[in-house]
Parts: sequence; C-alpha cells; structure tokens
Amino acid sequence: MLEVWFHEKESDHLHVGHRITKVLYQGCSEYQEIAVIDTVEFGRMLVLDGIAQLSLRDEFVYHEMLAHVPLFTHPNPKRVLVIGGGDGGTMGEVIKHSEVEEAHLVEIDGQVIEVCREFLPQLARSLDDPRVTVHVADGIRFMKEQTAAYDVILVDSTDPLGPSEGLFTVDFYADAARALRDDGVLAVQSESPFFTPELVQDVYRAIDSCFPQIRLYMATVPIYSLAPWSFTMGSKKPQERMTFRRVGEAFATRYYSSEIHEASFCLPPYVKELLAEREA
Amino acid sequence: MLEVWFHEKESDHLHVGHRITKVLYQGCSEYQEIAVIDTVEFGRMLVLDGIAQLSLRDEFVYHEMLAHVPLFTHPNPKRVLVIGGGDGGTMGEVIKHSEVEEAHLVEIDGQVIEVCREFLPQLARSLDDPRVTVHVADGIRFMKEQTAAYDVILVDSTDPLGPSEGLFTVDFYADAARALRDDGVLAVQSESPFFTPELVQDVYRAIDSCFPQIRLYMATVPIYSLAPWSFTMGSKKPQERMTFRRVGEAFATRYYSSEIHEASFCLPPYVKELLAEREA
Repeated sequence: MLEVWFHEKESDHLHVGHRITKVLYQGCSEYQEIAVIDTVEFGRMLVLDGIAQLSLRDEFVYHEMLAHVPLFTHPNPKRVLVIGGGDGGTMGEVIKHSEVEEAHLVEIDGQVIEVCREFLPQLARSLDDPRVTVHVADGIRFMKEQTAAYDVILVDSTDPLGPSEGLFTVDFYADAARALRDDGVLAVQSESPFFTPELVQDVYRAIDSCFPQIRLYMATVPIYSLAPWSFTMGSKKPQERMTFRRVGEAFATRYYSSEIHEASFCLPPYVKELLAEREA
Repeated sequence: MLEVWFHEKESDHLHVGHRITKVLYQGCSEYQEIAVIDTVEFGRMLVLDGIAQLSLRDEFVYHEMLAHVPLFTHPNPKRVLVIGGGDGGTMGEVIKHSEVEEAHLVEIDGQVIEVCREFLPQLARSLDDPRVTVHVADGIRFMKEQTAAYDVILVDSTDPLGPSEGLFTVDFYADAARALRDDGVLAVQSESPFFTPELVQDVYRAIDSCFPQIRLYMATVPIYSLAPWSFTMGSKKPQERMTFRRVGEAFATRYYSSEIHEASFCLPPYVKELLAEREA
C-alpha cells in the first residue's frame, strides 16, 4: 500500500515523520507556503514553510497556555491583541474570558486565515465572534501605531524566520510595551529551551529590557521540537507574584488549570541556568 | 555526502529520524537487539529493539526524575533496588544520595551492562560504586524472593513488550509491595499519557490496587515519544503530602529541583481525566 509521509525537519539532523492520509491544501501566499494535511497520529495539521504549526490533537496545549496564563495574570483584561495566530486557535481561548470586550487579531497573511476558515473551522470560527476584529496587516507596523490601547498582547508567531523575524526584536517588544495600558501584560511563544537555547535567551533578554517584570513558563507541546516549549511574559506593573483568578468549572480546558498555571513557572535547573547566564 | 539515519518508529504512523555519525555496536543478546549509535542532535544513544532508550543529551531528565522524586519522598532511603536500568544511569542518580548504604541492580540482560560499560562509561561507572551490587537476573523472579528488604524500588524498564512485559502487572507490583519495608516507596516509568493513555491507566490502576497511596508525576523527556512522559509512585505508608528534603547546593542536577519535584505532580486536566476515568 502506498504510504505517504510528511517529514518535518526539526534540524538538518533530526526529522519527525508523520504518515498522512490526505493533502487538503497546498499553495503559496505572498509570504510563505501554506499546507493543510490529515495525519494519522495528530489529525489535521497546518504546515507553514514545511514546519508544523498546529495539529487538532495537541493544539489545546499551546493555545491554552499562550492565552490563559497572561489573561488570568491580568486583573481585568478588557482589550486583547493577538499578533499572528491567523488560524484562530489562540483567539478561541481568548474569547472564553467573559471580561474580554474587544479582541483584535493582526495576521500578515490573509491567505492563512482563508485556508483555516475552510479547512480548520473548529479553530477559525473564533474569528467570527462579535467581539473580534480581524486586521490583515503587518503586526510590526500595526504595533507602532498603538499607545496604551490594550490590556494583554499575545504574540502567536511562527519561528523567527521569514515574516516573523521582526517579532523577535527589542524594537517590537518596546512598541508592545507602549501599546499596552499601565498594567498591561505581553506574552509570546518563545521557542524551545532544549533545541534553541540561544533564541530563548535572546527573547528573554529583549523582553526584560522593555518590561519591569519578566517570567518564562513552559508547556509540553508534542509537535513542537519534541516538546519542551517556552513562553515569555512581560508585565508593565511589577507584582510580588503573578496573580490569577481561579478557573470555574464552566471554563473547559484540557491542559490549563490553576495548578498548571503555577507549575508552569517552575523551571528545571537547565532552563534557569540559561536565563541566569544571559542575565550575568 | 552519504547521510545515515536511524528512524525510530513511535508507531506505524509516526517516526523520529536521527542523523547518525556512527554505529558503534549492534548485536543480539538472548533477549533483544542492542545498538549504540552516535547521533548528531542527541549524542550517543542506546537503542534496544529499535527503540531509543537514552541519549547522553537528555538522559538527565529521565534518570533524575525516576530516582530523585521517590528518594526524596522516602524519609531515609538506606536500601534501594533498581529493576532494569542496566546502563547505570538511574543508579548514578541513586548513589548521589548519601543516605543510601546499599543499592542492588537487577538487569535481565547482562549484555546490556557489558555494552554500556564499553560505550557509555559515563553512566555505567555507577555500577562500580562500592555500595552497588549488580545481579544479572530476572527482575520478576528476584522480586518474588524479597520480603521487607528495601526502602525504595525503582523500575527502569523498556516498554511493555518482550522482556519487560511482566514488569507491568499487578502480580509484580504486589511482589514489590511485599519486598518493600513498611514505609517503602515504589516508582516506575509509566509511559506516555499522550500516546499510550490506556497503558498509563493500566499501570496506575495496578499500582493503586497494591499500595495505599499512589501518585503520578510527569517530566518532558525529548527522545521519549515526543516528550510528555509519566512516572507512577506507590507508597506503603500513606502521607498527607509526599514529603522531601530540600536539595543542597552540592547536589548537582539539571532537571530535578525541590520546585520541579512539587510541580511534576501538577497534572494537566487531560491527564487527570485519564486517571479519574480509570478510577470511576
């Protein structure tokens, strides 16, 4: 029987092979190659420039952790901005928060949104929520034009290659700090402390230079580089401890919980050393 | 240039490909195929029957968590038994505990020990510690002959196929409970809650039926099935809370810490549901 495989290159020396049943979409936008495939182990998957961005089987880990940790850290997140995340997965978690009155999504690649609306409606339907406005625009430029406009900003980017490169810079984080209100919180996906430690250090240092309080937290996302994944959160108002409201029964999550919120900030020594080295 | 790859089959539909620079050893013992390879990303790797058992780059996560969580839970671990673990990695962590007076390793496959002594001496040298006795024997039979002999038992097994199958049974856990002293603690590697949830449930239920207190904890081991890995710990003496002594500066670890000890018991809802379903 014909076996069709998608081999994701984690590096030149490490691949992950997913057996697939169908290529549903493959096309090139102005910015990148976009593909949607059905895999046997992870279900439907969005692949950009050959890199797995999400799968329906494990997206809950990444999207819940990117959204809920900062949204439960902020005391009252009314206006939220998502940079990237054209699939709608992060926005789906954002709008679970009843305090959110307005949420903006700024995705540079309109074709990602269109493709996800067609092939990943479970995620993309969040973009139709009446509180949500979608801007097909360059997140870097968009951010430059905002001042004290948001309570929480989430950066749901691809790896720092191609269109996302400028989202991993001090300039961008400084603009994000200005775009946030006085008690605002920024959270970004910040790559793998195991496979790309220098990148984690760079993001940590850059956000640290723009925010009075910074913390890194982790989650295990199977499709991302064999799973130890990091997020970095900067806060404009220093707090003794990141606070969060208890999650009610009605708030359905599969990875996030109050317990996991706290535990995700406990870093193994190998990660702590990484951040300390950089501070030294 | 010739590229040589080792493709590990996580399942029929998911492979992980490691580019290798050298096959140092490949041979068949009475029990399994044993291989030692040098990989570009993970360094030297022990592979049994085609499944990656450890790499020098990430072994610290697995070995530290299998050993230190139970050893810091027990108030005074003097006699320790390791079943499996012929590479010596787990034993290396056990003997870091100065309270340990005597440690026994029972490995069914003497050839694994010999191969690791030659190609992974960084790990296998722990077996030469004067407190350590190595038994090349069937762990299941060995366990049947012990009564109130150990403070801590660690099961460092391969997946439940071939020689390890009998290490995942109620009979074996009941024998382990009898082999432990009154305040004894058993910890076993218990596979992936993400990829083999039924197996995690089975082990949890089986240990639960033999020990008054049971807890599951997790760690992110990159080479194991894309990383969300579980360990299950049974305790003969119920405690309000698993206790542990603070780790001193001298106790060098790269993954384990007092903080991580506590955090590793915080389970995401998707894992909690797994255990609750089984209890229902």
